[in-house]
Amino acid sequence: MSDCIFCKIVAGEIPAEKIYEDNETLAFLDIAPVNKGHVLVITKKHFANMEEIDEQTLCSMVKNVKKIGLALKKGLGIAGYNIQVNNDPIAGQIIPHVHFHIIPRVEGDGLKLWPQGKYIEGEVEKVADKIKNNL
Amino acid sequence: MSDCIFCKIVAGEIPAEKIYEDNETLAFLDIAPVNKGHVLVITKKHFANMEEIDEQTLCSMVKNVKKIGLALKKGLGIAGYNIQVNNDPIAGQIIPHVHFHIIPRVEGDGLKLWPQGKYIEGEVEKVADKIKNNL
Repeated sequence: MSDCIFCKIVAGEIPAEKIYEDNETLAFLDIAPVNKGHVLVITKKHFANMEEIDEQTLCSMVKNVKKIGLALKKGLGIAGYNIQVNNDPIAGQIIPHVHFHIIPRVEGDGLKLWPQGKYIEGEVEKVADKIKNNL
Repeated sequence: MSDCIFCKIVAGEIPAEKIYEDNETLAFLDIAPVNKGHVLVITKKHFANMEEIDEQTLCSMVKNVKKIGLALKKGLGIAGYNIQVNNDPIAGQIIPHVHFHIIPRVEGDGLKLWPQGKYIEGEVEKVADKIKNNL
């Protein structure tokens, strides 16, 4: 897409610090890293979100996420990382071109996960049914 | 693994509100949801983390994450979700059995993403090299 910043990075019209590239996938450093070494893994073809991407391309991308995650551990000497996809604007997706974040985690980085809640009696089965009925 | 809570759910020794199941994957509702409908997608076989899981099983799991994400949107009437893997204890992994979180997001849920930082001059190339040298 002509107005997509990630498509422009793929086309070489906008510079990026590239980490890895193959026929379907491009990975580069996020210029505003949560921690140093924060990588974005994107498809070369434009897909807006997880609903648009085809399964084969998704598999290729996720295999690369796994490979790059290991390289983060080895290269940066970190003990772990988060993988995150923010799917759609309500979930924090800013660029509408599907991408996986790989975020290195270091001791004392102050990053938290999320607040966890609970279901009331009888609620969990109803929520499950709503999802199962749409699979 | 005999002492793994997720392996016990796979074996039917611990109950769970199941959403989806096939030969390789099991998905069920997190009993402590970040938002209602928070799903955990796990492998039936025990793999501790992203380094242990083989590519074929990872692909199967991620295809199911995509499918279940769409069912969350339709079934719960939500506009988006986060996918997250906390890989290793430093990243918030509590159960050492690889799993994908799918977290529905709703307007005004108060969940934030993360603080983003920046690189100093000349730093980004050095970080990239450390990663690339380990791919």
